[in-house]
Parts: sequence; C-alpha cells; structure tokens
Amino acid sequence: MQNRQFLLASRPVGEPTADNWTFTTSETRALGDNEILVRIDYISLDPAMRGWMNEGKSYIEPVAIGDVMRAGTVGEVIESSDDGFAPGDFVYGHFGVQDYAVVSTKGVHKVDPSLAPLERYLGVLGMPGMTAYFGILDTGMPKEGETVVVSGAAGAVGTVVGQIAKIKGCRVVGIAGGKGKCQYLIDELGFDGAIDYKNEDVKVGLKRECPKGVDVYFDNVGGDILDSVLTRINLRARIVICGAISQYNNTKPVTGPSNYLSLLVNRARMEGIVVFDNAANYGKAAAEMAGWIAQGKLKAKEHVVEGLEKFPEALMMLFNGENFGKLVLKVDHEAAQ
Amino acid sequence: MQNRQFLLASRPVGEPTADNWTFTTSETRALGDNEILVRIDYISLDPAMRGWMNEGKSYIEPVAIGDVMRAGTVGEVIESSDDGFAPGDFVYGHFGVQDYAVVSTKGVHKVDPSLAPLERYLGVLGMPGMTAYFGILDTGMPKEGETVVVSGAAGAVGTVVGQIAKIKGCRVVGIAGGKGKCQYLIDELGFDGAIDYKNEDVKVGLKRECPKGVDVYFDNVGGDILDSVLTRINLRARIVICGAISQYNNTKPVTGPSNYLSLLVNRARMEGIVVFDNAANYGKAAAEMAGWIAQGKLKAKEHVVEGLEKFPEALMMLFNGENFGKLVLKVDHEAAQ
Repeated sequence: MQNRQFLLASRPVGEPTADNWTFTTSETRALGDNEILVRIDYISLDPAMRGWMNEGKSYIEPVAIGDVMRAGTVGEVIESSDDGFAPGDFVYGHFGVQDYAVVSTKGVHKVDPSLAPLERYLGVLGMPGMTAYFGILDTGMPKEGETVVVSGAAGAVGTVVGQIAKIKGCRVVGIAGGKGKCQYLIDELGFDGAIDYKNEDVKVGLKRECPKGVDVYFDNVGGDILDSVLTRINLRARIVICGAISQYNNTKPVTGPSNYLSLLVNRARMEGIVVFDNAANYGKAAAEMAGWIAQGKLKAKEHVVEGLEKFPEALMMLFNGENFGKLVLKVDHEAAQ
Repeated sequence: MQNRQFLLASRPVGEPTADNWTFTTSETRALGDNEILVRIDYISLDPAMRGWMNEGKSYIEPVAIGDVMRAGTVGEVIESSDDGFAPGDFVYGHFGVQDYAVVSTKGVHKVDPSLAPLERYLGVLGMPGMTAYFGILDTGMPKEGETVVVSGAAGAVGTVVGQIAKIKGCRVVGIAGGKGKCQYLIDELGFDGAIDYKNEDVKVGLKRECPKGVDVYFDNVGGDILDSVLTRINLRARIVICGAISQYNNTKPVTGPSNYLSLLVNRARMEGIVVFDNAANYGKAAAEMAGWIAQGKLKAKEHVVEGLEKFPEALMMLFNGENFGKLVLKVDHEAAQ
C-alpha cells in the first residue's frame, strides 16, 4: 500500500520549520506475527510532540532522526495476523504521522465509533481527557467552593479540566487567548469567568475573576502566566504542572517562575503529572466521563484540520494558540490514491 | 532600666546596611497587667529576618519603621505581673533586638537551662529545630534507603534535617560552603557525603554523591543550587522549599528555577513550609528530638557572636555563609551598665 509519511529530518532549534520534516512515500511492509495494518483516520496534534523532537530522554524516548513522527492516532484495521483484531475494527495507538501503519498489537486498543465520533477518542475520551481527569482530581484535589484556574483553557486538556472542576462545585476561571474562546468557555462550557491573555493583563483579570484567590491552578502554559497566578494563590494551594507550551520553542533556557517563593509563604504545592502513570485506571475514568457526557455535563470540542500534508502548519497552530478545542488532523486517503 | 535597642530605621534595598538601623537607648516602661520584664540573654539571627524588613505582608507582618527589630530570643524574667511567671524563670519569645523587653505573656513559654544550654532553645530545640523536624518528616517524607540532599547543610536547620534523615535510614548529602563545614558534616554529624559549593560545581558534586539520584531535596538557599538539584531528581521526588537565602538580598526579581519542568518529567513535587503551622505539635517534636539528643543521634552546634552592638554585622554573616551552626547573638549586659 502506498503510504505517505512525515519523517523527522532534523531537530528544531526553537520553532519547528518545514526543514525539520521529510514528506515521503513508501510501500507498507508485509505483516509479521501479531501485527495489524491500520488505515489511520485521525492524528492527534499535541504540545508534547515538540518535546519528542528534542534530543535527550524526557518521560519518553525522543523520536529518532529519520523515523516516522510519533503521534496518537485512531484508524481502522485493514489486515490482521492477531486473533484479537479483525479487519473493520477501529483502534487507538501511536501509529505516527502517516496514512498507514504496520504495527505490533501491543499497546493497541479498540474504540467504538458507534458510541462517539472517532476523533473524540483523541480528545476527551483519549489522552487529553485522561490527563485532565487525573490531573485535576488526584493532584489538584478541588473541593466544593474553591476557586480553580486553568490556562490553555480552550484547549484539549483545559476544556475538560474546567468542566470537571465545575462538576465538583468549584468556581472555575479559564485563561485563553481571544474573545471568542473566552465567550465559549462561559457560554458553552459553564465556566464562571475567563481571562483573555491576548487582550488584558492576566494579573488584573485574576484579581477580577478570583476575588477569593486561587486554590487550584492547572497549568498548561508556564512562563508569565504561571508567575502571575503565583501572586494570587491561597494558603495550601495546589498547582498542577501539566505542560508549559509557552516555553517549548525557547532557544534560551526555560523561564523559571520568579514568584515560586509564594509556595513558601502560602505553604503551597507545585506538582508535575504525566498521564501514563494512571494507565491502570483509564477504564474507570473513561466510564465516569462517558456518564458526564451522557448527562450533558461534559462537552467535547474538536478542531479538525483536513489533509495529511498540512501536518507541519497544523502542529504550529498549537504554539500560536490558534486551536480551539482538541486539535486533530484528518487524513485524506482519497488524495493519496 | 536602661535599654539598648536596634530599631528599623529604613527598609533595605538589597543587602541591609548600617543605615537601616538606629541603635538607641531608652528606659524600659512600667509593667501593665499580665506582663513581664525580661532580660534578654540570646538573640536568634535567622534568614527570615530579612523578609521582615521588607514592606508588604509575607507569612507574618513586616516590622514597622521605627519599631524594635523582631527576633526570637531567650532570657530571664526580672519582674512579673502574671501569676504564671516569676522572676528567675527563663523564657522564650519574640522579644526583639534589645537588652530588655516589657511584654505581654501571650506567646511566651518557659525553657529550662538545666536541661540544655539556654542558646540551644533558639536552635535545635527552637524554631530551626522544629522547622527541620516537620519539614523533613511531614513534607519530605524520606523513606529508608532514599537519598536526601539538604542545602545550607551546616546551618541551623540544615544540620538537623540531615541528622533526622540519617536517623530515618537515608543516604544524606549536604551542600555547604567551605572545606571545614563539609568535613564537619561527614565527621561529626554522620552525613554520607558533602558538596562544597564554594569550591566545586554542584552538578558534578551531585553526580558523585548521589549516584542513585535525589529523592528528597530540602532547600534553604534557592537560586542556582535549586536549579542544579532539579536536574538530578528521581521519579516522585519531594522538594521542600524552606527558604531561599541566596535571593533575599536581590534588588532584581528572584531567579525562578529554570529547571522546574523536571517536576513534570519526574512527577515530582515542590512544596513550601512555614513552621508556625505545626505549633500544636511542637511539644511532641521537642520530646522526640530530646530523646535523639540524649542517645547521641542528634548533635547541636551553635555559633555565638557576643555583643548586642554587633547585631548588624552578625546578621550579615548569614547571607555571606559565614555562620557554622545556629547563629546567635549573646547580649553583653555588663557593657550596657
């Protein structure tokens, strides 16, 4: 099968550019034992991908130069040499940025497109949803009546964090870029307040939206916004470090939070999370979230960009704050044939 | 009674200087109800005092301009209008940087100079000891076999943190300035390793002394040392933020930890502590530490500077890393008469 692929050509310095990718076409190989050939339908675009492009191990190995770019994906099984998978099954796995993948079935799991649109398994029912669920509940530990602030609030993780905090009875304030996103958080997702970091001073916004201070801060962005929130935290606040998208394309060292001594003054905690640690409990979390979706308490929003060849530009939308909801790339198989 | 006092004359910009103080003499006032006149024998010199000189509330109100400088102290009751206190009693309280104090007995507690030298109630049996005890045990949570690193290791808090971690069966590494201090940590206090930040690269030292990485880091200094330790932490490490003495005299914003995203990669935690939160349990802690002292497992070291008038220079020893053990000022009452 003709297979278009994005290979990592070189490691970016700062923002990824077209030069960092090789867009090539090859033939899929024959299946070995316990393998499947998957036609990839949707590719997840995530901030973490920037880290995978760097040299040096983070919480996961980097992508090697010349390898297909790693990505979470959903697609349909076309061929299988594993009794557990049959053609027509839909599956989730890290199949990479390409049309097709021949992979071992280890780590692959089935998804059901009759229960939810396929792309949703990359968002609220996938890694971003799991990240939000375990991060806000187990590490943020929001209590009824507390104020929860989330940055990257209109993104894949932020939308879910805020809605879960609302379900738990908190005052929820989202930080997002642009009027449209802020309005959406309040009107559609039921947030209590929003701060438009592109058009107002975040400190002023925090003062207005969080009159009782901040008890839980779920941080997806790092940088100045983290520093601003640190000036408004309450005693025993919990700061969940989920990401720092403002820093991922830095060519200079990461900007550390100047106001970290607010942790001391307020006996507060800052803690990092990585979703994979909760793998054993994904099932339970998915069931609870499916219940909330059914009750209309948890809404999903995906931002779909169509066309595999658009991968490099689509990825950059994350870093420019252009995505609105979970960003996914829809693969255009017709175009490939 | 003639009473020499150090008053806060102005708020320092950067390092405190002689101009920030007024050294004056006044008469002690007559006692009101439930008050005592205390002759102050020892004055505690603590990094936190720098913060109290700044404007703006931290975890405690700042010292007002023109007020006697706040300090933890021990001394003898000379006169009392409170049935609970008699002349000849020895007491601990925040009596300030002066010869004598007339104060309400609220918050004053008795100490016994027959059980331990009086100055020890400002060190291992006082606030620094309590800070170390609750900080390392409740927030650091060291487990047997783990590696614990402490900065400011030869100071009032650091010496106690390291010894408690040894009692709990950990590998203990101290970061301190100078060969003498490092040798003392190993030879006298039983630390497993020491890093002399004045004479070696802390990252190189950490690699050598912590071959299995760092599970608990108790930070008294902040700045570059915190950033270096962040590069060596293990999964689920606990970083206790007790202070940041390297930053207290900054005229520029505090340097935040550039490597804080190591918390994310390692699912680690950074948490601030303030000793007063544990006031209800001081008694229990003091009893346990007294037991360790009696068994020879916990050694105390005080660094005594004599002469009330030396207060401004003595305070600066903390910021220059010149103290070796708990720094206290011994008041020379003879000189005052």
